[in-house]
Amino acid sequence: MRVSGVSRRTIALSLDGWSVEVIDQRFLPHRFVLERLESAEQVMRAIAEMHVRGAPLIGVAAAYGMSLAMREDPSDEGLRAACELIGRSRPTAINLRWAIDGMRKLLEPQPPSRRAELAYSRAAELCEADVVACRQIGEHGALLLSRLAAERRGPVRVLTHCNAGWLATVDWGTALAPVYVARERGIDIEVWVEETRPRNQGLLTSFELTHEGVPHRLVADNAGGHLMQRGEVDVCIVGTDRTTSQGDVVNKIGTYLKALAAHDTGVPFWVALPRSSYDAALADAAAVVIEERDESEVLEVSGRSTRGEIETVRLAPDGTRARNPAFDVTPARLITGFITERGLTTPSELEAVYGAGRA
Amino acid sequence: MRVSGVSRRTIALSLDGWSVEVIDQRFLPHRFVLERLESAEQVMRAIAEMHVRGAPLIGVAAAYGMSLAMREDPSDEGLRAACELIGRSRPTAINLRWAIDGMRKLLEPQPPSRRAELAYSRAAELCEADVVACRQIGEHGALLLSRLAAERRGPVRVLTHCNAGWLATVDWGTALAPVYVARERGIDIEVWVEETRPRNQGLLTSFELTHEGVPHRLVADNAGGHLMQRGEVDVCIVGTDRTTSQGDVVNKIGTYLKALAAHDTGVPFWVALPRSSYDAALADAAAVVIEERDESEVLEVSGRSTRGEIETVRLAPDGTRARNPAFDVTPARLITGFITERGLTTPSELEAVYGAGRA
Repeated sequence: MRVSGVSRRTIALSLDGWSVEVIDQRFLPHRFVLERLESAEQVMRAIAEMHVRGAPLIGVAAAYGMSLAMREDPSDEGLRAACELIGRSRPTAINLRWAIDGMRKLLEPQPPSRRAELAYSRAAELCEADVVACRQIGEHGALLLSRLAAERRGPVRVLTHCNAGWLATVDWGTALAPVYVARERGIDIEVWVEETRPRNQGLLTSFELTHEGVPHRLVADNAGGHLMQRGEVDVCIVGTDRTTSQGDVVNKIGTYLKALAAHDTGVPFWVALPRSSYDAALADAAAVVIEERDESEVLEVSGRSTRGEIETVRLAPDGTRARNPAFDVTPARLITGFITERGLTTPSELEAVYGAGRA
Repeated sequence: MRVSGVSRRTIALSLDGWSVEVIDQRFLPHRFVLERLESAEQVMRAIAEMHVRGAPLIGVAAAYGMSLAMREDPSDEGLRAACELIGRSRPTAINLRWAIDGMRKLLEPQPPSRRAELAYSRAAELCEADVVACRQIGEHGALLLSRLAAERRGPVRVLTHCNAGWLATVDWGTALAPVYVARERGIDIEVWVEETRPRNQGLLTSFELTHEGVPHRLVADNAGGHLMQRGEVDVCIVGTDRTTSQGDVVNKIGTYLKALAAHDTGVPFWVALPRSSYDAALADAAAVVIEERDESEVLEVSGRSTRGEIETVRLAPDGTRARNPAFDVTPARLITGFITERGLTTPSELEAVYGAGRA
């Protein structure tokens, strides 16, 4: 998608043919910064510290991290260590495990001399497959939005939580792909962008929508329920870091609250779900490890000062402690349906679409 | 309650016998600033710009604003103008209307020469009555907390939204009064303090609890539902800006979402309700005007910089617009009960406790 009119992806192989270039999202929306990653260690840190974030992008970044690791040390021990290193960067998104496990299965039977080449090739495949999957989600989701557009005068008002746009993937996004495709088709859309404390990923969504020219309004996370009560939301669309076979959705903290409000007010609640975020091996999401992040993310916040610099200010009184769970679980009973690469589906039909048992 | 060990109220008549001293809460939690208000106009601005906030405190401040107005111009025209001026400071809290209407009814039949004296006397009465009402809410709520304490080992974990502590009243608070009284009685309490974007009144709660030595943790508003899902909340207690005769609760934006989560997870959801926030004349809260505040409250945030100064930083990209509704409505069906001045009660018994029809 576009930044100041220039087409961009979030991650790509550098022109040197081995290092990896990413958008360092810590500086968005205020500054557009590219970062070159030259080692598996750097990739691990980029994921853990959220230079790159979003389940699909984490998966692709992990695959490139494995590639860099194989360039450094393609031995069996090197392979094991790389899986371990990158695997502990973030615990919740299934894409990370999926990318690493896939790499290990591919590389283990191969002689060390071939591993780096195969890993880069697989990483490039995953990267392109992610673009295709997101575009397909966009196509299917746009049909949903066009149906909603036919039912009413004026724009379709979409509420989204966190950032599941192109910045969370390689391109297009998951939850926002339907918005982008619908706009291509001339459907009038307005987006309610939830701030998504404590990391404020809603500002990434706002950045994306601004550069794509999509009308939107930023709201506090607290406001979403009220907007639904007052009939100002036609559909909620969110992404997911992991969805289980029975359709429980692990996603950014606060998603559960919006699903409850949507259910209570009769607003359809859809989850954009690529195959890579589907956990066929797990039915009940209660077993998923919910990442607890640093207290400082709640106690401090960054923004642009009047001097135009990015500054961090402390919100809380001295001595105040915080808790910072990064995800929550939305039970399948609150979800209207999934926008998958293969079409729209309900929670109960999800296994039929994406497969059952161990992936 | 205490600030750095010194007993404080949020509002008091100054030693000069006519001007009004308040804590200017815009600088909390970082700086403790007192402000002297010398005219009805200044009181109106202090309410509108949230130097003072919280429904009960708004009511008392309005009463002192009427007193200052009567000192300036006690004529019929002056009385009418004062009601109008202070009445338009904030639209949602019923306490404001209640204080102004009460004053008008008291003063209208009196000769102008007596109005200022009567107004000051009434304002002082309301001020003291608020302290008594809050203490009573604390007593009744502490019984609730002691019952919960008897049911479990370890501290009773209370979740609260916004600030309905002593800073929102003259003293004691509404939702936090039970916590303070329970602590006096040796009950072990821990409080989950929701940040309460966009104005971050949770930081006021954190300030209060820090100075009273009550253990607490700050969490993003998004986290409350997850904590309830994981069994980490024993009870929710919130305040209210207006509660209707059928028990619909108008309170800080985001309250509805927490009530939904409490209902979904079986966590009791209580509302601390003084008589002054009860709107006997209204059954259905759908008719209540929900205040829309300035977009800048969502787009910018203030905190303490590394230089120790209070700084405002911009969160959103340039050109981003926001919506900023300040309150929402929690329907009575989601509420376990009310902690009133007269005891614990259910939504359906509320009319019997606080009266029916026009107040």
